[in-house]
Amino acid sequence: MKSGDIVRCEYGGTSRKGTYITSRNGMSVIKLDSGYNIGIPPQSCSSVERPVIEPGKKLELVQDKNLPELAIVSTGGTIASRIDYRTGSVTSQSDAAAILHAIPELKKVANFTTRSLYTILSENMTPRIWQELARAVFEEIQRGVTGVIVTHGTDTMTYTAAALSFMIDTPVPIILVGSQRSADRPSSDNAMNAVCAARAARSDLGEVAVVMHASTNDDACSIHRGTRVRKMHTSQRDAFRSIGIPPIGTVAYPSLEVKLSCDAARRNSCKPALHDKLDERCALIAFHPGISPDILEAYERYHGIVLSGTGLGHVCTELIPNLKKLIDNGTTIMMTSQCLNGKVCDRVYDTGRDLLEAGVIEGGDMLPEVALVKMMWVLGNEKDKGRVRHLLLTDLKGECNRRRTHG
Amino acid sequence: MKSGDIVRCEYGGTSRKGTYITSRNGMSVIKLDSGYNIGIPPQSCSSVERPVIEPGKKLELVQDKNLPELAIVSTGGTIASRIDYRTGSVTSQSDAAAILHAIPELKKVANFTTRSLYTILSENMTPRIWQELARAVFEEIQRGVTGVIVTHGTDTMTYTAAALSFMIDTPVPIILVGSQRSADRPSSDNAMNAVCAARAARSDLGEVAVVMHASTNDDACSIHRGTRVRKMHTSQRDAFRSIGIPPIGTVAYPSLEVKLSCDAARRNSCKPALHDKLDERCALIAFHPGISPDILEAYERYHGIVLSGTGLGHVCTELIPNLKKLIDNGTTIMMTSQCLNGKVCDRVYDTGRDLLEAGVIEGGDMLPEVALVKMMWVLGNEKDKGRVRHLLLTDLKGECNRRRTHG
Repeated sequence: MKSGDIVRCEYGGTSRKGTYITSRNGMSVIKLDSGYNIGIPPQSCSSVERPVIEPGKKLELVQDKNLPELAIVSTGGTIASRIDYRTGSVTSQSDAAAILHAIPELKKVANFTTRSLYTILSENMTPRIWQELARAVFEEIQRGVTGVIVTHGTDTMTYTAAALSFMIDTPVPIILVGSQRSADRPSSDNAMNAVCAARAARSDLGEVAVVMHASTNDDACSIHRGTRVRKMHTSQRDAFRSIGIPPIGTVAYPSLEVKLSCDAARRNSCKPALHDKLDERCALIAFHPGISPDILEAYERYHGIVLSGTGLGHVCTELIPNLKKLIDNGTTIMMTSQCLNGKVCDRVYDTGRDLLEAGVIEGGDMLPEVALVKMMWVLGNEKDKGRVRHLLLTDLKGECNRRRTHG
Repeated sequence: MKSGDIVRCEYGGTSRKGTYITSRNGMSVIKLDSGYNIGIPPQSCSSVERPVIEPGKKLELVQDKNLPELAIVSTGGTIASRIDYRTGSVTSQSDAAAILHAIPELKKVANFTTRSLYTILSENMTPRIWQELARAVFEEIQRGVTGVIVTHGTDTMTYTAAALSFMIDTPVPIILVGSQRSADRPSSDNAMNAVCAARAARSDLGEVAVVMHASTNDDACSIHRGTRVRKMHTSQRDAFRSIGIPPIGTVAYPSLEVKLSCDAARRNSCKPALHDKLDERCALIAFHPGISPDILEAYERYHGIVLSGTGLGHVCTELIPNLKKLIDNGTTIMMTSQCLNGKVCDRVYDTGRDLLEAGVIEGGDMLPEVALVKMMWVLGNEKDKGRVRHLLLTDLKGECNRRRTHG
């Protein structure tokens, strides 16, 4: 058997079909059609088909120049992934041109230019890559494209969406898209997500958004605001959910009809601008019972900390003096809630009032992850403490509902 | 004006009613009926009513001795809170007897004994208090009560529910209940939650559960498994949600009809046992892009770490050598997902396989917070590394779906 062979295995009373990957510890590693790998004694399996592979074939794209132009900036992730027949795992290998070649339906929606920036799994994204990506996307906008599509691994796609939201003022749609199941799996969502993303990228939208499956039915994708979306399931295709607000739009499939909410920013409502500074010296700390206050000593030289507290935005009383010490030494600290939904309000209970007194800033109804990205952006662009506080408390890119002030 | 006076204030073109709390920085602090405090110039407010307060009045309880006996163990929180008219904030002040006095409907459901263990806001809960609570609850079970109700602040109620689940094998219901809105607010959920909790505590259930509002309609409470529930909104009354499984039952209101799912453990299915050891030297670390690998140095002497990774359970490649170093030095590390829903699976992508190779244990579909509590419990009860790994991978109290093994 050779890597990549389609095999049939009779083992433990079951007949299974899959792809032979490699031999490990005397067992044949078979990738089942479900996407999972299984170890089976070699004698139980036989090769039934050897697929023809044409490596290195030059991709030629014929496009309709009358359609609007969209830029695809690719960063990697499952939408661009191929199975690695050596290790049996999935790695990001294809570039933007390969995505286009693999999903021919795209060519009916627009005329594409592609730009392969990275081929990484998105857990390896960094603030520095967000900045490079923002610059690349901004260049495409300045070139005059109708919209930009960023292909991205799903793991940290929402962090990147938030980062692009803060870094770019955009008159055109910037659409992040990925897939939860790789292209080699029958249930892959990559084609439908990509086509819906392309349609959203030529729509009347004028902001950063994530476009992914709206449900496990293959009948629509949701358009989520880049600062309001969270991955809420490890594997389901409809993992991405808007938190705190409804999705700002939908793309029906296969009709590709786009509906935008009143709330969604419209095309050409602002002039393009790039603000790509970020302060990386920021952290997100999850509070939990039993947390040791002395752990905060490790964050002594941090410029910004976002806490995900409990309930309305609390931590234990014991932690507050150490937070105050950090604040007194120049660290900006903002409180969000691990509840994810609803507003932080530290004026109701004792511990909350003590936190406000110590100088902790309330994060409104911002998602903890979005608050972290916003902290990096605000501290990257502003040094004055008063202005930093003001910006953190102000809704900049739809990341928090406008605050009603009390007392 | 005196603290506690009902006042009417005409200010900024609006007329507002509320409770006068105190004077601060030359302004009158008024608690509005919405529960929020507001600062208003003193001359804009006038007292309209002075409520009669009878402090220190001895509570006398007349109960129906023919009803089954339930124990209420109180720890504090909003269900037992009163407004502090000095600071305007809400503090836990009432004890179990006061709860019973405040909610006379309880007396129709059962005959109660009350035990006031703590009066703290639940963000101040600690593993040590979980242990004391477990011992107190266990004593009540051994005394032969029909069920136990634990009143608890909502902030960390689910952490405590998980802790009690692991520490106590129970033949009777152990019901945690709280309220999202304090008793002094018109929208308070404390009475309905308490009555539904009492009904659940005399039901056929035989496990630890959280009983709270099922929706914003006042027509039912959900019964959530103690290891499967999460507070998912900062302020709504239906903040508590089962994650990964449906609620294990409901209590209709006001009929108090209890329905239990097939899946719910039944009364008397196990013998009572207490396993109250916990290893507090554990932490929950949220991964995010830009996390600095050297932050792990602060966790060098920790016995257990739960990571909430991205997607199927990932962190950036750069972090893995530092995790391996911790593991090689004896720290047990388990991976969960910040997606909250779905299973961790580290066999699909490169970074995941590297994590497994480093010795990270997959947390299945356990909630990160529950995995942390389980880690404390397992490490408190077992020193052998192999047994620790086995227990972490085994479903002990419904905290994870039984694992299908692949390859």
